[in-house]
Amino acid sequence: MTHPPAVTIVEVGPRDGLQNEIAAVSTADKVAFVDGLSAAGHRVIEVSAFVSTKWVPQMADAAEVFAAIARRPGVRYTALVPNLAGLDRALAARVDEIAVFAAASETFSRRNINQTIDESLTRYADVVRAAGAAGVRTRGYVSCAFGCPFEGAIKPDAVVRVTEALLAAGVYEVAISDTIGIGHPGQVAALLARVTSTIAREHLALHFHDTRGTALANVLVGLDAGIATFDASAGGLGGCPFAPGASGNLATEDLLYVLDGLGIATGVAIDGVAAASYGLASRLDVPLRSRYLQATAAAQRPA
Amino acid sequence: MTHPPAVTIVEVGPRDGLQNEIAAVSTADKVAFVDGLSAAGHRVIEVSAFVSTKWVPQMADAAEVFAAIARRPGVRYTALVPNLAGLDRALAARVDEIAVFAAASETFSRRNINQTIDESLTRYADVVRAAGAAGVRTRGYVSCAFGCPFEGAIKPDAVVRVTEALLAAGVYEVAISDTIGIGHPGQVAALLARVTSTIAREHLALHFHDTRGTALANVLVGLDAGIATFDASAGGLGGCPFAPGASGNLATEDLLYVLDGLGIATGVAIDGVAAASYGLASRLDVPLRSRYLQATAAAQRPA
Repeated sequence: MTHPPAVTIVEVGPRDGLQNEIAAVSTADKVAFVDGLSAAGHRVIEVSAFVSTKWVPQMADAAEVFAAIARRPGVRYTALVPNLAGLDRALAARVDEIAVFAAASETFSRRNINQTIDESLTRYADVVRAAGAAGVRTRGYVSCAFGCPFEGAIKPDAVVRVTEALLAAGVYEVAISDTIGIGHPGQVAALLARVTSTIAREHLALHFHDTRGTALANVLVGLDAGIATFDASAGGLGGCPFAPGASGNLATEDLLYVLDGLGIATGVAIDGVAAASYGLASRLDVPLRSRYLQATAAAQRPA
Repeated sequence: MTHPPAVTIVEVGPRDGLQNEIAAVSTADKVAFVDGLSAAGHRVIEVSAFVSTKWVPQMADAAEVFAAIARRPGVRYTALVPNLAGLDRALAARVDEIAVFAAASETFSRRNINQTIDESLTRYADVVRAAGAAGVRTRGYVSCAFGCPFEGAIKPDAVVRVTEALLAAGVYEVAISDTIGIGHPGQVAALLARVTSTIAREHLALHFHDTRGTALANVLVGLDAGIATFDASAGGLGGCPFAPGASGNLATEDLLYVLDGLGIATGVAIDGVAAASYGLASRLDVPLRSRYLQATAAAQRPA
């Protein structure tokens, strides 16, 4: 195996994680969580989303969170932005970077953002252009890249098409995302072979969910394919909205356990991330689904 | 990646799994479980253990289970055997194969079987010889190969020494076992590089626990190294005695989800294994820790 010597972890716990937890999280708790994650060494943290407060009330305090976090030099604090109105709010909050969220599944796109894929790509092109004019880079997500809760299988060509459209619009990186945690190593290898045949690896990231326990195996396949950016959520926050009770986002601690063991540099300290996760869990009723945390916590309890 | 085109799964749920569950399982339920597993296509099933009924009361009905199962042609029904007295009972029960259990950790060996590693190897040599004289093959386990709950790190040379000793004594295959579920892909790659430098791959199997969520990633590394036999436990039965509440054995369903996705033949039907797991769980209070089962069951519940 030849792997990248260093990997960038995009910490999505404060946004993707907390958005999908039932617990209501105060602004102060979010700020402490983000500050704990930057203290752990994270260099990219998706802090919040400037989206409709009607549809996503969990992220209504995005501006307040950005105003209160202790910004560490060298850390990119990012936010999800669906449209130009959200971009205005994001720029006012001094985000370092934004992200837009497209789907590889037509049905998912309509149900999730009430637009066709093409409509969303057209709108995102405006957002990316306006962000760039303000000096802010844009990252893209392609959701349902490994399967859709409504359509089932998704063709690799659909993933490639949306990824290429986002890159053409000016996003610097696209996270190929397994929204429902159904991807397995054979599928990841096949999809990446197709995707990397026309798209440079440095434009690609992988966003896995651990719903079927395959996330770390999928990461290995990604490393084998030369991908060097992976999303993860501290503590495994997030759950899976399509499989209530099951795991969602790959836990940052679990990812670090594997990357550390492979000698791949990340700059992120597993104990620091764990401290941030435990800090949040000590103040709120959020389940820490990280297998690493469960194993180490259980090992400390008397048998 | 080049992987073996076919893999043998050694189903350890009825023995390693049930032995480590708290629930008391009736002989009839064990028999139904084993018969469900053979119906699913398993060709190797570790059915029980002929051990001290004082120390392991869960396996006291080993002979009754062997007498009652419906033996399918082509299926090897195996049992753990610690000594010559156990072998006599196993032979009387018409086992197809036995297994012996050595440790790579001196402290674990003393605590688990009250013998030094060398004492256990000497005794096992007698057992293997006597089994062979009766026409019965012996499989070996090397426990704590990736770490010991008492000693911590284990040197690869210790694993190699015990593996070679077991093979020299006449066992046909050794399962390198991650008893506490601490192994990660970097470690698996390093250990296998060392082990396969002196031991033929066809003598090797891998026995992973999913305590830290790394089991499937570790399997991938094993496949990359040319290993073609993996242990797994239906439903994820077993737990981890060293981390109460955490996962233990890799779930057979989770392993099959990955192997099926890679197009690797096993002869085992994931739905059949799931049916056996659900059948057991419907009669007993045993947690099904399989991530695949949790995800698919949760997806069937209304959100």
